[in-house]
Amino acid sequence: MSTASRVVNPGPRQANGLETATMIWDKSHEWKLRSTCSVWSEKDRKVAVYECIEEHTSAPGNADAYLKFKADGCCTMRCGTLSHSSVRQDRAGLPLDLSRIARNPSHGMESSIPTLESIENAAAVLSASPIHRTPVLTSESLSALAPDGTTLLFKAENLQKGGAFKIRGATYAVSKLSPSELAKGVITHSSGNHAQALAIAAKAKGAKAYIVMPETSAVIKKNATKGYGAEVILSPPLAEDRERVCEEVRQRTGAYFIPPYDHYDIITGQGTAVLEMITQAKELGKPLDALVVQVGGGGLLAGSSIVAKAHGIPIYAAEPELADDCFRGFESGTRVERVSTTTVADGLRTPVGVRNFDIIRKNVEGVITVSERQIVMAQKLVWERMKMVIEPSAAVGVAVVLFSEKWKSSGITGNVGVLWSGGNVDLDAPMSWTVIKG
Amino acid sequence: MSTASRVVNPGPRQANGLETATMIWDKSHEWKLRSTCSVWSEKDRKVAVYECIEEHTSAPGNADAYLKFKADGCCTMRCGTLSHSSVRQDRAGLPLDLSRIARNPSHGMESSIPTLESIENAAAVLSASPIHRTPVLTSESLSALAPDGTTLLFKAENLQKGGAFKIRGATYAVSKLSPSELAKGVITHSSGNHAQALAIAAKAKGAKAYIVMPETSAVIKKNATKGYGAEVILSPPLAEDRERVCEEVRQRTGAYFIPPYDHYDIITGQGTAVLEMITQAKELGKPLDALVVQVGGGGLLAGSSIVAKAHGIPIYAAEPELADDCFRGFESGTRVERVSTTTVADGLRTPVGVRNFDIIRKNVEGVITVSERQIVMAQKLVWERMKMVIEPSAAVGVAVVLFSEKWKSSGITGNVGVLWSGGNVDLDAPMSWTVIKG
Repeated sequence: MSTASRVVNPGPRQANGLETATMIWDKSHEWKLRSTCSVWSEKDRKVAVYECIEEHTSAPGNADAYLKFKADGCCTMRCGTLSHSSVRQDRAGLPLDLSRIARNPSHGMESSIPTLESIENAAAVLSASPIHRTPVLTSESLSALAPDGTTLLFKAENLQKGGAFKIRGATYAVSKLSPSELAKGVITHSSGNHAQALAIAAKAKGAKAYIVMPETSAVIKKNATKGYGAEVILSPPLAEDRERVCEEVRQRTGAYFIPPYDHYDIITGQGTAVLEMITQAKELGKPLDALVVQVGGGGLLAGSSIVAKAHGIPIYAAEPELADDCFRGFESGTRVERVSTTTVADGLRTPVGVRNFDIIRKNVEGVITVSERQIVMAQKLVWERMKMVIEPSAAVGVAVVLFSEKWKSSGITGNVGVLWSGGNVDLDAPMSWTVIKG
Repeated sequence: MSTASRVVNPGPRQANGLETATMIWDKSHEWKLRSTCSVWSEKDRKVAVYECIEEHTSAPGNADAYLKFKADGCCTMRCGTLSHSSVRQDRAGLPLDLSRIARNPSHGMESSIPTLESIENAAAVLSASPIHRTPVLTSESLSALAPDGTTLLFKAENLQKGGAFKIRGATYAVSKLSPSELAKGVITHSSGNHAQALAIAAKAKGAKAYIVMPETSAVIKKNATKGYGAEVILSPPLAEDRERVCEEVRQRTGAYFIPPYDHYDIITGQGTAVLEMITQAKELGKPLDALVVQVGGGGLLAGSSIVAKAHGIPIYAAEPELADDCFRGFESGTRVERVSTTTVADGLRTPVGVRNFDIIRKNVEGVITVSERQIVMAQKLVWERMKMVIEPSAAVGVAVVLFSEKWKSSGITGNVGVLWSGGNVDLDAPMSWTVIKG
């Protein structure tokens, strides 16, 4: 075996008798015979301990390199990836302090604030799932309506599985559950798109999904959620009511709670959309000069902002005037905890989450609001000129780049990326632009 | 110069003193010094005569090979393409008998029934225009509603320039006009999509377009046509009224008449959509087993049927029950000359053209009709599941493969291609499926 950078094992012991858990797959190490390593298994949601059965050096990023271990029931493990199929059980045989491990930045559920690297890892996980790499679309007609010198690029998450980007976070979060957790099912409360997303992600894993939805959700969203095999429980529309009903069902069923946005795994998963978009824009020969992403709970915006910041692309939040909690929080520096609104952008009726707000504050250049009329005009233009069904929430970013005076006066031009969140519209109801007049 | 296959010049003289016109760019010839050749110029719409100024062999298909000619004002001409930029004038200086040349299968406007080869040539012409290569889309959700074993593929001509396939035929027909013809403008009568298409195609060539539209056309179509710089003239809705008004304007302006469907160049241009689709389906690893194309005037269906037949792919026509002239004509063997209908599929309210009917009869396996309710249900499903705005006419083929008992009993499965004609819908009017109830 070749010599390597440095010897990291054995490391200091943890209180529970395990070695310091080590991310063996992302560093170059020289492994001594019988050196041990404890690794958090995302799949099984527990720590497994390995003992090295051969002196060797790990080769990170090389999928053909294997680390050789002696562990309970397994002996090899692929290096350079997150695939741990041979992890079976905890050698110590002790109940692990999961909450403590979960706080360890290196491991497990909601381990730390997402980074570009963790979002790239999530993209690798999602690429092995049925999630679509949605297209990036351009429109001469719409670009001509934006400030001079602008080329608009749209990430079409309305064409995503379930009709919205939400499947990304849901699938990533579900991918981290153990078989015993999956057996009890998952639960969430959602105004719609996250509901469907979690239903799909759970079904893909053969797990039951309990979905608490506000009575005011669009019929199409309720029906679609049931259609994916989920159990739908209706609640009053206010956020606190939804949370209460959700907690009641959770306690009754033991289902694992996956919130719609205020969760690092959700943020990580949602960040993969902009990650893809940045690559696709380059492939089109139109690398992004700026990004505009709408904000409701802030799962998508927070994830997007981490990726954008790391790539040096300025990112702006787009929000309805009627649900401007993020705007007010951003300006004052203090998160606004509640919002009660009937904005047509029904996916954005929630306040920004705690984790989300902290991330957004650090990474976003500014928050720009638009009127209800601007939102529905933008929505109609996309339907008419691009022949794409997008929901009002998805039109909020479009409205910013087409109609906002604040955006125009910012002087931002070039290749501007706008993310369409989804396309789930109640097609039996009158179209929004026929209801909201100027 | 190398020796070549055979000497073809000089050939027999025509009555007007010209050599027999020869397609010099698609044969291997040995050219003797001073041999002459008369060539129909599609661009200038006249015959030019060339005299060979160097003994040589033409190399067809090789864009780097030149034929050397002595002609009036020019001396070289690219071989292997249809580009004739150096053709200036008729050496004989005589008015040419264009009508006679137009009947010559080798040359000029509407020279003969389209073939796979002529449609492939048209595709090459269109590929140099701003026309889009629209995507081919699949949908697990819709395929699951079709007969078992079916994978549906949709050619999304709703994403085409002008929002419909019609730009193909219009652009190809306009590409054949001379500068003097273009100076007088072009004229047509159309229920909508051909109108916009011709307006766009004319504008691209700097020519004026006169468009006779029925008063009953969708507002969005009238406005879009005007938006492309065309002069819109309204007429009563019946086909004969439109034709009368069109002829009046044509005589007053001298504009060149390009009909919406009953014309070989239009048929040739429209055929390029299915040509692309066959290639794209192969690229997706889903080569087509059958095709379903809706029929109104029959420009698209006729062109598609020639391509399908040549590729050995069975093709079926889809038609609204309320406008079933093609179905009745197909069954009886005699074209139905008139149709008066208010079908929701407003692009299909015209009778099948004369040229179109002859081609369709020879190539199409059968005509399948669907009800108004089936059309709007199919339209809604595409909007809801695929997030694509398609017009009712575009949903007629979808309705056949999803809802027709006749289709189901045909037993056709595998990769079934359906062509969406367009996506021009009046978004301020109530959606069709909310108006036409089951």
